[in-house]
Amino acid sequence: MRNAQQIATVAVVGLGTIGTGWVAQFAAAGLTVRAFDPDAEQRAALEATVCDMLVRNGQPEAAEHLRLSLHDTLEAAVEGADFVQENVPERQAIKADVLGRLDRALPGNVIIATSTSGLMLSDFQDALTAPARLVVGHPFHPVQLMPLVEVVPGRRTAVETVTIAEAFYTRIGKVAVRLEKEAPGHLVNRLQAALWREAVACVEDGIASVAQVDAAVVNCLGPRWSVVGPHMAFHLGGGKGGLRHFIDQLGPGIQTRWEGFRTPDLAAMTEALVCGVEDEAAGRDIDTLQQERDRKLAALLAHRAG
Amino acid sequence: MRNAQQIATVAVVGLGTIGTGWVAQFAAAGLTVRAFDPDAEQRAALEATVCDMLVRNGQPEAAEHLRLSLHDTLEAAVEGADFVQENVPERQAIKADVLGRLDRALPGNVIIATSTSGLMLSDFQDALTAPARLVVGHPFHPVQLMPLVEVVPGRRTAVETVTIAEAFYTRIGKVAVRLEKEAPGHLVNRLQAALWREAVACVEDGIASVAQVDAAVVNCLGPRWSVVGPHMAFHLGGGKGGLRHFIDQLGPGIQTRWEGFRTPDLAAMTEALVCGVEDEAAGRDIDTLQQERDRKLAALLAHRAG
Repeated sequence: MRNAQQIATVAVVGLGTIGTGWVAQFAAAGLTVRAFDPDAEQRAALEATVCDMLVRNGQPEAAEHLRLSLHDTLEAAVEGADFVQENVPERQAIKADVLGRLDRALPGNVIIATSTSGLMLSDFQDALTAPARLVVGHPFHPVQLMPLVEVVPGRRTAVETVTIAEAFYTRIGKVAVRLEKEAPGHLVNRLQAALWREAVACVEDGIASVAQVDAAVVNCLGPRWSVVGPHMAFHLGGGKGGLRHFIDQLGPGIQTRWEGFRTPDLAAMTEALVCGVEDEAAGRDIDTLQQERDRKLAALLAHRAG
Repeated sequence: MRNAQQIATVAVVGLGTIGTGWVAQFAAAGLTVRAFDPDAEQRAALEATVCDMLVRNGQPEAAEHLRLSLHDTLEAAVEGADFVQENVPERQAIKADVLGRLDRALPGNVIIATSTSGLMLSDFQDALTAPARLVVGHPFHPVQLMPLVEVVPGRRTAVETVTIAEAFYTRIGKVAVRLEKEAPGHLVNRLQAALWREAVACVEDGIASVAQVDAAVVNCLGPRWSVVGPHMAFHLGGGKGGLRHFIDQLGPGIQTRWEGFRTPDLAAMTEALVCGVEDEAAGRDIDTLQQERDRKLAALLAHRAG
């Protein structure tokens, strides 16, 4: 396999929001990008969208020196690629078909990374000729801003594949966190779902509104967890005795609270949650809110990096 | 009752970490602070600690013009106070005793706010002469930096008390989030415990190490939730259709995931978690890590405010 430093040309397959974000990220790192999507309109829009992203992210020189080619077929796009990032829709049959075609089109030593957020890698590996080069490289929205990529092996993924993928993502400026094994939703979406479950339960129980939950998180847990993770936060919350003292003192109460958590009925709560978030949005439309989020997130991450 | 603008003198009862943080916060807002702790050493150390906090937070003028008096008894400390912030240890009997003494020492129109994180306000109210002026004002560590205060009524708390406490905390620079009713752990510590439950389950299942969990949160959920809360994040993740579209598409999968979450045994996991966080600390001691956290948190919040 090529080592992470030797990867110069990346093929991006599937040019929705995630694929487009990856193209911007790879381009910002100075790589040559070969792109494919079955939708000709997506292909036609890509270059302008990516240049716009790069300029907004303060990388106009990357936009100017963009080495991006668009291809009519998946097979043409991956020709000569050193690394492939796949981002087709999250449906088992579509993913299986595309991963099979990529496997047949590429030499066995080229890594295929899939952006899948919800599917299990091992379910695809048995059908491939070279399953050892398949790995999850799961990014987070907005891809070109959010540092994290979860790197996850399937049962038949080679250790070398994981190591190279991790090094490659790190090289292009992401923070790659390598998980030990696969799980539905990987790690972060599980953690996010767990917090949201309790948030919805609190809204249902009339403890707080949607907007109150969001304000509480934005003004406490978000900043805290931008600086230290949940375990380190409790380690430092335990004083001189650290996490051990924290668990000794508060563990029994936390265990009781854990056991008392319940699962709300999301379908039954939908109307209340939608009304709540519309109250919070206070007339601002999705576009405006997304731009506001991206602007604040870019500024926060730039501050943190600086 | 005095309205929030009329509050000029605050009594702080209990001068541990939380009480000391409150003294710094009140002093930074230019208020007169009257402080009490049964421990003479705590009292003796207070002024220097608070001045040091203020200088480190870039508020040297507040340190210079500090109006802080120390008192030998609780009753002397609250004399003439317009607002009381109570921060004694989280034990039912101690809290009940101190709240009873405060209730007897103060006119019924002076608000008593308790910093309790884990006890239920209503359990204390029946024993008081003026239960309507008792409210939770729960801050987060480090108090003088973290914006959020949860303002929570007990069953017998007057609406006016909640409104004035909320306005007062807002006036002195906190973000007050008013909860509709009390619940064990209020809101944020419930959300935090819910995420941690799944984090510990993932460590137990061998999906990720303690350090990997922390790195994933710090490089994704922390920054995301510093900018938008969990509901707004999903609203913007739903594209043009917002949260309704998000739930229509992903709701069934999330419901299934919620139902599959399980409660780990914290006591059985203690050794693994402590070893994991020590690996993550990589030889840095608690003091060093706390200073690092406070420095980064102060910088992040100053960036966000600016």
